Amino acid sequence: MNKDIEIAQQTTLEPIHNIAEQLHLTREDWEPYGQTKAKLSEQLFEKLKHKKSGKIILVTSINPTPAGEGKSTVTVGLGQALNQIGKKAIIALREPSLGPVMGLKGGAAGGGYSQVLPMEDINLHFTGDIHAITTANNALAAFIDNHIHRGNTLQIDARRIEWKRVLDINDRALRQTIIGLGGPKQGVPREDGFTITVASEIMAVLCLATDLQDLKQKLAAIVVGYTFDNQPVTVGDLKVEGALTLLLKDAMKPNLVQTTENTPAIIHGGPFANIAHGCNSIIATKTAAKLADYTVTEAGFGADLGAEKYFHIKSRAGNIQTSAVVIVATVRALKMHGGIAKDKLATENIAALEAGMDNLQKHIETIQAFHVPFVVAINQFPTDTEQETTFIQEWCQERGYEVALTTVWADGGKGGIDLAEKIIAKADGFNSTYQPLYDLDEPLTEKMRKVAQKVYGAHDIELTKSAQEQLRFFEEQGWSNLPVCMAKTQYSLSDNPALLGRPTGFTITIRELRASIGAGFIVALTGDVLTMPGLPAKPAALQMDVGEDGKAKGLF
Amino acid sequence: MNKDIEIAQQTTLEPIHNIAEQLHLTREDWEPYGQTKAKLSEQLFEKLKHKKSGKIILVTSINPTPAGEGKSTVTVGLGQALNQIGKKAIIALREPSLGPVMGLKGGAAGGGYSQVLPMEDINLHFTGDIHAITTANNALAAFIDNHIHRGNTLQIDARRIEWKRVLDINDRALRQTIIGLGGPKQGVPREDGFTITVASEIMAVLCLATDLQDLKQKLAAIVVGYTFDNQPVTVGDLKVEGALTLLLKDAMKPNLVQTTENTPAIIHGGPFANIAHGCNSIIATKTAAKLADYTVTEAGFGADLGAEKYFHIKSRAGNIQTSAVVIVATVRALKMHGGIAKDKLATENIAALEAGMDNLQKHIETIQAFHVPFVVAINQFPTDTEQETTFIQEWCQERGYEVALTTVWADGGKGGIDLAEKIIAKADGFNSTYQPLYDLDEPLTEKMRKVAQKVYGAHDIELTKSAQEQLRFFEEQGWSNLPVCMAKTQYSLSDNPALLGRPTGFTITIRELRASIGAGFIVALTGDVLTMPGLPAKPAALQMDVGEDGKAKGLF
Repeated sequence: MNKDIEIAQQTTLEPIHNIAEQLHLTREDWEPYGQTKAKLSEQLFEKLKHKKSGKIILVTSINPTPAGEGKSTVTVGLGQALNQIGKKAIIALREPSLGPVMGLKGGAAGGGYSQVLPMEDINLHFTGDIHAITTANNALAAFIDNHIHRGNTLQIDARRIEWKRVLDINDRALRQTIIGLGGPKQGVPREDGFTITVASEIMAVLCLATDLQDLKQKLAAIVVGYTFDNQPVTVGDLKVEGALTLLLKDAMKPNLVQTTENTPAIIHGGPFANIAHGCNSIIATKTAAKLADYTVTEAGFGADLGAEKYFHIKSRAGNIQTSAVVIVATVRALKMHGGIAKDKLATENIAALEAGMDNLQKHIETIQAFHVPFVVAINQFPTDTEQETTFIQEWCQERGYEVALTTVWADGGKGGIDLAEKIIAKADGFNSTYQPLYDLDEPLTEKMRKVAQKVYGAHDIELTKSAQEQLRFFEEQGWSNLPVCMAKTQYSLSDNPALLGRPTGFTITIRELRASIGAGFIVALTGDVLTMPGLPAKPAALQMDVGEDGKAKGLF
Repeated sequence: MNKDIEIAQQTTLEPIHNIAEQLHLTREDWEPYGQTKAKLSEQLFEKLKHKKSGKIILVTSINPTPAGEGKSTVTVGLGQALNQIGKKAIIALREPSLGPVMGLKGGAAGGGYSQVLPMEDINLHFTGDIHAITTANNALAAFIDNHIHRGNTLQIDARRIEWKRVLDINDRALRQTIIGLGGPKQGVPREDGFTITVASEIMAVLCLATDLQDLKQKLAAIVVGYTFDNQPVTVGDLKVEGALTLLLKDAMKPNLVQTTENTPAIIHGGPFANIAHGCNSIIATKTAAKLADYTVTEAGFGADLGAEKYFHIKSRAGNIQTSAVVIVATVRALKMHGGIAKDKLATENIAALEAGMDNLQKHIETIQAFHVPFVVAINQFPTDTEQETTFIQEWCQERGYEVALTTVWADGGKGGIDLAEKIIAKADGFNSTYQPLYDLDEPLTEKMRKVAQKVYGAHDIELTKSAQEQLRFFEEQGWSNLPVCMAKTQYSLSDNPALLGRPTGFTITIRELRASIGAGFIVALTGDVLTMPGLPAKPAALQMDVGEDGKAKGLF
């Protein structure tokens, strides 16, 4: 079996101007970044504003397991399949974070014959968007500490600065730090910590902004900390929203690339799916919808996190209409939800599979609750037996759920044609819009409770004492009308990562609330949420190299 | 008077393919980055290897003062002037660091009608090279801390880690930090600190590497710290030189842009001129020399720092032959060297000017010691009187020094034609090569002494006790044959920034030595050298914005 990077390097890429022409873009609509990448211009969306938007298809999944689900691979494969059956389709994906690429996991650019390319660039620096966010985030941090060092006119309480520095690196040693040491010339000592760049509120802001001026307004609204009098201090108070917007000017432009089958793909933005909303940018998704009849996009993690936030946060902020949902499941992951360990997955086990179907069932019910049609996609792995895949298919058919088997990793778009035909039938037949599970004017606790009960299947929520205090404070600030952004483990429907399948009777503990006023949501943290990953004992970086031919080696 | 950014935004830029064609580059030789920037391919230098190199002209200056000298402006203006008189010329410059742009100083892209463009991009993220260096530097730091956290097989002494994290931000609060707090799951607590990215040894390595494989070897040789047994630990010991090379693959490609008069310019690399050698990359300078008959390049700060390191470090590592040197001086700066305060510079003062000529005289003697012909360029400012400029011209003529008056800020290339004609006469008449002031096989103390005496005019050097210990240790390690990289204040020939003009009888105190084994030099620190700048009370960022038209505002 070829590795992803080998398949990627064997693929003949079209020059990016051919991809742009395929989308009927003129030379003013885009800028090249190398021969196979481009940035779409700021004016493009404005220019296309009055054009009818195509249908948007969201790809989500069951709760992820270490067995792998291949959601991005299915997203890319489905886009390719749509093109193969003569539809004009485009893919809108999140940008991978470099830190994890150096650490443990493979890339986030799909796999096999369903990848976005050039995968080396996309998984590394790409067009620099994440670096621009790192810079803007850390410039803001420096402005804050400089303000305090220079006399602290705003009376910022150094113990209550919420704004953290970031790096796009898995760097455990930076989680908890003390900065500003060395005496009066070096700054004001205080506790601090770094998160990974994609967890920065600026990333969430960029993904939810509809244009540059909206970006600037949202940046200005970011609350970076509190005064000694407990009043919020914003970026606008520091008067640096213009400088931050300038630093993000190019990062706001969506990136155009292509897949292994030369299908156009827009890759833009990648907010952390637990601390933030985990979807690619609104501007990318909306631009894509103007350029094609079908846009295939995805949301981070399982439907309990990604799809919920996609519908409640991204779709609301961008007024996005979604026509159909693909729920990706794999035999391997369902068997893990049925109680089987990772090293036993290669053996056929119908009983475990049957036990694990509960997890899929819950996510189906969630999508049904949003009132959007869906198709279940079984993303086939080489170890799956025919009996196993047949079992899932029959299970779906018995319940009246549309289901398709996909082999897009091995076969590219061809392996997703059945899925493509079935999802189009759903999307084309759907003219209404989704129904949110809560209204914005409900109290924050009620919003959290509804997500916990309707999406996770929890008995109820429970707020810790400090979360209750924060809640009261946030309500006093007038932040009650914002949507909630749940920060929860992706591995379980509950807040306990060990509870696979479909747990019941559990309570979701809301440990802490955080105000992402720029992004426009209140983060509710359940359990421990890690915002700065660490490196494993043997980082993936140890295998990486550049060959004598100048090509990337060992990337995956 | 128009601001730099207004002039820049009023300039009509040629599409970058026109600039590339002007240099007879084929489509395989470069990659576009937007409409007006490009990266030159890895193969280009290899392809041009057997072509005869053009003449290289170095632009240096007197000791800089707060009055401004305009060395980059003269460099750009001279390149434009050479083209105006029908010569095929190219400019090879350093890339500005973003941190200082947000803080106090203007850009480092020239000024007026002698700028490299697009100045907004060049002064901000440009093509991402510095971000790639930040990433590689900090990935290495994370690998080091992860190695210790995972059991520390290499026995790295956490108290003796020399490798610092970096950001391209002026962030005083990060100068001295404690990291790894929070218990056994968060890493190993230790003292640490951040420097600005351009002070990273990786930046110096990139600028001194001749190709990707050479880059990898140099990266592997970097000493990141020492073991409990006092043995050096290298990047090669950590086995991550391949991953770092992969992260720097695109950053190694020189960037092609143009000037306000559409003269081609290559901008690549920008190492800190005190802690490192302060010149743009070898690969950029050598590629430029293959593409034009005259390459105009510059070195950081005054001739005592920049030109000395250019000749002793860069020229040696890259086997670069320099045909002539321009020494930039201004009436204003010379008057400051003559004892006048900054707010009194607008008044004519021949006596002060005469007193300040000493500083110029010393730098002339330095260039003479290297045995390279030179021209003095008086970079004219609006406040200069005719008597003042005439005074400098006559002073030069009396001593047999070629001198030219330039008005390149106001007039572009036209203002540098006299300089262009005079420098060509020098360069074309010179067929020998420069003579270094020390040989590599001399002892390290002798090399430091020779620079101090011959370049600074010092009486002698003095090593602190700890520097003496380091010296012995470095000699034991077999590092004696490396050149020295002096880290000294740029404001004075001495190690005391307050001593302007031409101080005599002083001793240079070598406070500390640092081993930059990857870059291939021993840094000798004199006085306090700041490697992480801070922000001023009113950072330049407060004025920055993006207009409704999407254009950068308030950049300078």
